Amino acid sequence: MHTNLQLTANGKLQHLLTIDGLPRHVILEILDTAKVYINPETHEIQKVPLLSGKTIFNLFFENSTRTRTTFEIAAKRLSADVVNLNINTSSLSKGETLLDTVNNLVAMQASMFVIRHNESGAVHLIAQHIAPHIKVINAGDGRHAHPTQALLDLFTIRHFRSDFTKLRIAIVGDILHSRVARSDILALNTIGVAEVRVIGPNTLLPTNAEQLGVRVFHDMEQGLRDVDVIIILRLQNERMSGSLLPSPQEYFKSYGLTPERLLLANPDALVMHPGPMNRGVEIDSAVADGPNSVILAQVTFGIAVRMAVMSILMRES
Amino acid sequence: MHTNLQLTANGKLQHLLTIDGLPRHVILEILDTAKVYINPETHEIQKVPLLSGKTIFNLFFENSTRTRTTFEIAAKRLSADVVNLNINTSSLSKGETLLDTVNNLVAMQASMFVIRHNESGAVHLIAQHIAPHIKVINAGDGRHAHPTQALLDLFTIRHFRSDFTKLRIAIVGDILHSRVARSDILALNTIGVAEVRVIGPNTLLPTNAEQLGVRVFHDMEQGLRDVDVIIILRLQNERMSGSLLPSPQEYFKSYGLTPERLLLANPDALVMHPGPMNRGVEIDSAVADGPNSVILAQVTFGIAVRMAVMSILMRES
Amino acid sequence: MHTNLQLTANGKLQHLLTIDGLPRHVILEILDTAKVYINPETHEIQKVPLLSGKTIFNLFFENSTRTRTTFEIAAKRLSADVVNLNINTSSLSKGETLLDTVNNLVAMQASMFVIRHNESGAVHLIAQHIAPHIKVINAGDGRHAHPTQALLDLFTIRHFRSDFTKLRIAIVGDILHSRVARSDILALNTIGVAEVRVIGPNTLLPTNAEQLGVRVFHDMEQGLRDVDVIIILRLQNERMSGSLLPSPQEYFKSYGLTPERLLLANPDALVMHPGPMNRGVEIDSAVADGPNSVILAQVTFGIAVRMAVMSILMRES
Repeated sequence: MHTNLQLTANGKLQHLLTIDGLPRHVILEILDTAKVYINPETHEIQKVPLLSGKTIFNLFFENSTRTRTTFEIAAKRLSADVVNLNINTSSLSKGETLLDTVNNLVAMQASMFVIRHNESGAVHLIAQHIAPHIKVINAGDGRHAHPTQALLDLFTIRHFRSDFTKLRIAIVGDILHSRVARSDILALNTIGVAEVRVIGPNTLLPTNAEQLGVRVFHDMEQGLRDVDVIIILRLQNERMSGSLLPSPQEYFKSYGLTPERLLLANPDALVMHPGPMNRGVEIDSAVADGPNSVILAQVTFGIAVRMAVMSILMRES
Repeated sequence: MHTNLQLTANGKLQHLLTIDGLPRHVILEILDTAKVYINPETHEIQKVPLLSGKTIFNLFFENSTRTRTTFEIAAKRLSADVVNLNINTSSLSKGETLLDTVNNLVAMQASMFVIRHNESGAVHLIAQHIAPHIKVINAGDGRHAHPTQALLDLFTIRHFRSDFTKLRIAIVGDILHSRVARSDILALNTIGVAEVRVIGPNTLLPTNAEQLGVRVFHDMEQGLRDVDVIIILRLQNERMSGSLLPSPQEYFKSYGLTPERLLLANPDALVMHPGPMNRGVEIDSAVADGPNSVILAQVTFGIAVRMAVMSILMRES
Repeated sequence: MHTNLQLTANGKLQHLLTIDGLPRHVILEILDTAKVYINPETHEIQKVPLLSGKTIFNLFFENSTRTRTTFEIAAKRLSADVVNLNINTSSLSKGETLLDTVNNLVAMQASMFVIRHNESGAVHLIAQHIAPHIKVINAGDGRHAHPTQALLDLFTIRHFRSDFTKLRIAIVGDILHSRVARSDILALNTIGVAEVRVIGPNTLLPTNAEQLGVRVFHDMEQGLRDVDVIIILRLQNERMSGSLLPSPQEYFKSYGLTPERLLLANPDALVMHPGPMNRGVEIDSAVADGPNSVILAQVTFGIAVRMAVMSILMRES
C-alpha cells in the first residue's frame, strides 16, 4: 500500500516517502537530475528559478537543525519560498489533530511539504490524506525511512565509483534502530551491488537481518575485509548508556573505525557517515579526516539530490 | 482617538488596527482587492512583485505560529522580505521599553510591522508613536481586536453568499474574552447584515451585549434557528477548567455544534471557525468536516485578505 | 597572526575579524562603500542584486536577536539567501566539534558566515580553518572584538562631523569587559582623532588602559569636559549585582549621562550608544531621546556598513 502511494498510475514520482518499492529507473532519474545541478569543475550548485512562486513548508515534528537546513537551502536554490515550522508534538493543541494542522497549511497554498516526524508512518498518513497536487517528502520518520539520505549515499558512491555492480558495501553500527540503514540497504539492493554487509553486535541487529538481503557480521575485522565502501552509522546517545551496549568506550574497541581496521578494506575504500559524527565512538578522527573519507562530499551532494527530488516532484504536477 | 489613527486626513487606510470606526468603503476596498489575488478557477494565489524591496517585520509578543505563518506567506507572495521576531515580553531587556525595541526596528528600515501582543492597546500605542510612513497591522491584541480575522470572515461569507443584507449570522461561544467576536460583530454591523446573534452561557457573554448590536441567546437551539452563517469560536484552554465553565464535556452538551443542531439552521448555512479547532468541545467532527463547513476556505482567503491589506497600506505611502 | 588572517597577500579584505591591524585605507573603503547604499535625501537603503544566488549563514552561538536581525536585513538588501542558525553551545552534539559543524555548513555551499560566539577567539579559529573562498564576519566574540559596531560608530561620527582629526571622544562605562570599547578605541586610533578618553570606575577599567592609547578618567564631570562625541556603553546585567559595582542606582549617580552632565561637553556633542539601552542606569531618558542623541541613526547606518563589508568581502573572492 505504502509502496504505491508515492507513484502515479503512470509510475511517475508523486511523493518521496520511502525507498521501499521505489523503482530502479526512478532512482536513476533522481541521481541523473542531481548531477545537472552540480558544476562538474567547481562542485558549486547554482541557483535556478525552477520553483519560483512555489511555497515549501519544512514541517519538523522532530528537531533536526542540520537536515532542515539542507532542505531549506535546496528549496532556496530552486527559488522557492520556504516556511520553517518546528512543531512540538507534545504541545499540539488539544483537540486539533495532526491532519487538521496539515489541512490548514495546505489551505495556506503549500506546494510541497518536507516532513520529519518521530513516529514511523506519520509521513505516509499525511501523504495519504492530502490532495494529490500537494507533494510530500519524507525527511525521516521514526525508525522507518530516510529516503533522501539513501539517495545521496547512492549519488556519492556513484560519483566516486562509476560501476555499482561490483561493489561490496558494509554498513556498521546500530542497524536495528536506524532509518538510514533500512533505507540504504533497500536502495543498494534496488540499484544492484555485489554485496551489502551489516556489521554490529547482536543487540543492535534485527533478528531477521539476512532476509533484508545482507550478509551479517558480528566481527568488525571480518566484515571489513575487501569492502569498497564503509558506511558508519551514528551511535545515538540514548544507546550509549542503555542495556544494549556496555559503554561508548567498549563500542569503540569493538566497532570503531580506526586507521588499522580501515587497512582491511580495499585501499581506496570510501568512508561515509550521515553525520553528526561521534568522534572516538564510532569513528576515529584520523579516519574521519583522512583521505578515504567522503563525508563532507555527502553533504554537498545532499543539497543537489534534494533539489532533484523537489524539481522532479513539482514537474509532475 | 484610536479610530482615526488608522486613517489619513483624506480617509485612506494608514494602519489596520481595529474594525471599530473603519468605514464601510474601506472594508469593501479590501475585500475587492483580495479577490484580485485569487485565481477564480483554481483558487490559487499567484506571487506578484508589488512589495519587492520592502521589509516587513512580524513582531510577535504572543506566540502564534499559525497566524504568523499566514502573514509571512502573504508578505512573500507580495515579494517582500520578511523578518520574523518572536519577543518574549517577560525577557524584554530590563530598562529598554517596548518603544525602544520598535524604534530600533524602524531604524533598520522596516516598511511595515505586523504585530501581535497579549495586551489590548499595545498595537495602537506603537502606531501612535512611529513615523507615518511606517505601516502597522494589528494581528491580534489582547481581548481587543483581530481585524484581519474579521475581514477574512467577511470575505468568506461574501464569496459564498453574495448579498450580505439578508443574512442572519450567529456567533457561538466565549464572546466575552474573544477579540475575534468583537471584531466580527463590528465588521458585520458596519457592512450591514439582517441580524447578528451571539450564543453562549451568561458567564461568557458581556453584560452589555445588546449594546453591541446583537441579539443574545443563551439557548443554542433557539439561537441557531434559521441562521445563514454560524461562526464557532475556539474555547480557550484556560476557560476549560476555570470557574466560568463546569467542564469541556458540559460545554459540548450545551453549545457544541452537532449535526442535529446544524439542522435547525438554514440547510445551506455556512459553518466557520477561526481555528485551531477543539474537536468534540465546541464543534463535532462530523460538522467540522461536513458539507456546510468552509473552515479551510477561510484559511486560503485569509492569505488573500492579508495581501490586500498589505498592498493597500503600502500604496498609500 | 590574527591580524593578517583577515587580509590577503595583496592587503585586501579576506575576512572581517577584528579592528586590530585593519589598515586605515580598508576602513575608509568600507565607510565610503556604505555611503553609496544610503539615499542622501531620504536616508533609505535600496535593495540591490549584488549577492543574488549567494547563501549567507548567520551562525549565532550566543543569542542576540538584534544583531542577528541587522545582519539578516543587510544580507537580504543585497539579495542574498539567508539561513539563521542559533546554536546552543551547551547542546552541541557530544563528539562533534565546532569545526565539524562549520565544515558541514561549508559543504552546504555557504558563501559567507556571520558568527557570534561567547568565547574570544572562536571566530578566528573558524576563519583560520576554512577554505579561503568562504568569508567570515565577526559579529562579536567574547570580550574580544565587535568590528562592525566600531565601523558603524565611525560612520556615524563621520556622517555628522566630517573631520575626524580634531575630535575628542569619550567612551563611558565598563571598558574592561566590553568588546565594543576595545574595537572602538582601536578604530578611532587607526583613523586618527585628537583624543580618545575612557571614563569609568577603577573596577571596570583595564589596568593598562593608557597603553591602549586613551586618557583615563574616573570622574565623569572631568572626562566629559569639551568632548565632541560621547559613546555610552551598555551596563551588562551581570555587572549590576556583582562585586564590581554597588548597585545600578549608585552607578547612575556617578556615571549616568544626565542633561546636566551633557552640558559639560561641547554644545553639539554627539551622544551614541550601541543598544539596547538601560534607561536610568547608564543614560537618562532625556538625553537618550534628546537633540544630541544619534542612537537610532547608528542603527540605520549599521545596516549600510554591514552591506558594505559583505559586498567588499564577496568582491574579493
